[in-house]
Amino acid sequence: MTRVAVVGAGAVGCYYGARLAQAGHEVHFILRRDFEAVRARGLSIRSKDGDFHLDAPLVHRESAEVGPVDWVLCALKATAVKDARALVAPLLGERTRILLLMNGLGLEETVGAWFGAERVFGGLAFTCINRGEPGVVNHIDYGAVTLGHHLDDPSALDEALALWDGARVEVLRAPSLLLARWRKLLWNVPFNGLAVTAGGITTDRIMGDHDLHAAAEAVMREVVAAGNADLAAHGESARLDADADIEAMLRATEAMAVYRPSTMIDFVEGRPLEVEAIFGEPLRRAVALGVATPYLALLTTLMRSLDPARADRAG
Amino acid sequence: MTRVAVVGAGAVGCYYGARLAQAGHEVHFILRRDFEAVRARGLSIRSKDGDFHLDAPLVHRESAEVGPVDWVLCALKATAVKDARALVAPLLGERTRILLLMNGLGLEETVGAWFGAERVFGGLAFTCINRGEPGVVNHIDYGAVTLGHHLDDPSALDEALALWDGARVEVLRAPSLLLARWRKLLWNVPFNGLAVTAGGITTDRIMGDHDLHAAAEAVMREVVAAGNADLAAHGESARLDADADIEAMLRATEAMAVYRPSTMIDFVEGRPLEVEAIFGEPLRRAVALGVATPYLALLTTLMRSLDPARADRAG
Repeated sequence: MTRVAVVGAGAVGCYYGARLAQAGHEVHFILRRDFEAVRARGLSIRSKDGDFHLDAPLVHRESAEVGPVDWVLCALKATAVKDARALVAPLLGERTRILLLMNGLGLEETVGAWFGAERVFGGLAFTCINRGEPGVVNHIDYGAVTLGHHLDDPSALDEALALWDGARVEVLRAPSLLLARWRKLLWNVPFNGLAVTAGGITTDRIMGDHDLHAAAEAVMREVVAAGNADLAAHGESARLDADADIEAMLRATEAMAVYRPSTMIDFVEGRPLEVEAIFGEPLRRAVALGVATPYLALLTTLMRSLDPARADRAG
Repeated sequence: MTRVAVVGAGAVGCYYGARLAQAGHEVHFILRRDFEAVRARGLSIRSKDGDFHLDAPLVHRESAEVGPVDWVLCALKATAVKDARALVAPLLGERTRILLLMNGLGLEETVGAWFGAERVFGGLAFTCINRGEPGVVNHIDYGAVTLGHHLDDPSALDEALALWDGARVEVLRAPSLLLARWRKLLWNVPFNGLAVTAGGITTDRIMGDHDLHAAAEAVMREVVAAGNADLAAHGESARLDADADIEAMLRATEAMAVYRPSTMIDFVEGRPLEVEAIFGEPLRRAVALGVATPYLALLTTLMRSLDPARADRAG
């Protein structure tokens, strides 16, 4: 049995934490909004793979109540990465590892700089999960997680995969975490970006409109160019494949039909947008590496302006 | 005395038509929304240069009631250019000339193809005018009109300028109408475009934000490149000057302080956007001429998607 703490226990954190608890691990949920509800009634997962319920999950308001664990599952929004330091620090022992189930680029660098790179892992969840009433999580579709180690150490990655043995979660191995992050951006930049800036629209509208579809492809080509330059700059041999990877993303998006990207949901609900992790950091790297990315630059600028979290935003 | 008919008599058409009436011309206003109010109470211009009132302006519901005139002042929104044919045709005699007080590129070509290029003129109003209650027009600031002839015939242009003799309107001569149109686009594309796509913001927000300011400049450089290629393709020797013209536009925008571009007002009020005349036609020409304009392309795509007039728009 492994001791796990879930930090940033929104829908994604609660879902994957509950899967680990279901597999028999000792899972501590650090909760804010849902603390009372989960303590009183437990945690309900309504899953397309079958509902289940944790009757008495271990819940806490503060990380300090838990103390050192084997694994920290950090599922904060990327906009809250600055909060991770204080939330995670009390959970760390000498051998504690941290899995960042978060969107975007540069998070492992930030957390690794605080706590040591060798203990930091990234998880890319391909899933459709949202919150229901307090204490209820809806797992609507998909669910696989791609796991990578920040330093791409294969034996460290083996341990991360082992955590999920027996859990009802499909886990995939990313030999290069940076490649996996860029491959996810290949989808998130065009579809989260255009879904917001084109007016809060679903992916089918982007796929079905000649101009928006062409814009999505143009953005993707820039992401491939920036990603491959970044991979090369990090001494990695892995590369995105412009034609094959873009084609695969477009086919997958076609299959999603009417899909609301996470940032589009945040936008229409007036929540902070994950601008810097998904747009700002990729753009900064592209600029630093001399890769021309006009679409990414304009999208980033517009996303920053549209972000409700912007301090100087007009009413 | 010259017979003039004003078609598309919104705020801009009523203002300039009233100035011609004030100068002693026989001005017929073709009205829809304000017909009853203007017939009952006349037309009031509340101007920063002094208010005035037309007690009994000549008002009509249909162009056919007026018959042939010397000049047609067409101040339709560019989105309504398709309506111009039926509205203008009954006003045409053999020597009738048409002045298009409208935004954007390609309008003179369209109207010239219908009625003959030699009788078509373009007017670029640099002004801040809006409608008050029915029968009232507010002239808030500026007011100069740059006039050009569709075929750049200097003697035809002399006649257009002569129409305004004695009227309290500053008129400026555009030896190349195409250059004047592109110079106006140099402002309209970045500022109308970014003011809408960045969330319905005023020009001071664009000028004051590092990213948006840089985006505006990037868009302007593309407009200069596209415009100069278009001018060359039309056999014109006139050119935009990338550095000087952009610098002049930025200084002028700085001086406007908190300004709401017309397309941004249309956007926040849910009216059709002048997308094709300001964005679509310049982009089509850039693409046809092989000029790379990624910012213009993405802005055009987003503006089309954000246009409330779009038939397939999501709710």
